[in-house]
Amino acid sequence: MAASIKHLLKDEAQYKVVGTLWIECDNERFFGPGRVELLQRIGETGSIRRAAADMGMSYKKAWEMVSTVNKQAVRPLVVPKVGGEKGGGSVITDEARELIAFHARLRERFLAFLERETNELRAEG
Amino acid sequence: MAASIKHLLKDEAQYKVVGTLWIECDNERFFGPGRVELLQRIGETGSIRRAAADMGMSYKKAWEMVSTVNKQAVRPLVVPKVGGEKGGGSVITDEARELIAFHARLRERFLAFLERETNELRAEG
Repeated sequence: MAASIKHLLKDEAQYKVVGTLWIECDNERFFGPGRVELLQRIGETGSIRRAAADMGMSYKKAWEMVSTVNKQAVRPLVVPKVGGEKGGGSVITDEARELIAFHARLRERFLAFLERETNELRAEG
Repeated sequence: MAASIKHLLKDEAQYKVVGTLWIECDNERFFGPGRVELLQRIGETGSIRRAAADMGMSYKKAWEMVSTVNKQAVRPLVVPKVGGEKGGGSVITDEARELIAFHARLRERFLAFLERETNELRAEG
């Protein structure tokens, strides 16, 4: 049995290895693309409500996601804005920024893995 | 900004990097864990109907999955049993076995990647 599967693939079709990746905390979702985007948008807008609206997500769901990640990390990732206007506003912490940066590097390594594996599909075995 | 996120993780909690992986053909799902399992069960039972039932899947859905992968690969992966009993029965081809074996090796490399990345979470940066 050959190691390559090149001979099983159509010459004219495009095959690629794709996937999704996330970090779990005690077997529950902790940090993945959705939460990264939410935190980034909270950082940009200063508001959980606006970040949720921008993502087409309910405020309730966004608030629960924030509440969950805040408990999963050693320190909160989203905190109330100090001296913010009446009605609040939120900011992301340095810890959130570090996690977002780590996730970006992890994602780069994953994309490199997927690219290597995609090339492997047509490799000579 | 440190490369490590060890200081952002709770000592008492378990964090791990997890994910899913599949192969696409022309931007449509081609080969992933579900189809691998279906093909393996067809190989074991000699029957699309029984394989589907074992997986809690409708016969219609299983039949469509088989029809799709048969078109996506250069040669069919599931074929009617030659000289089978009345009412048919199906067998998987050598090509299907090769794809299943390739997928198992791909999955091993992915699990190794996930393990490395999980260790990386607590690595000193």
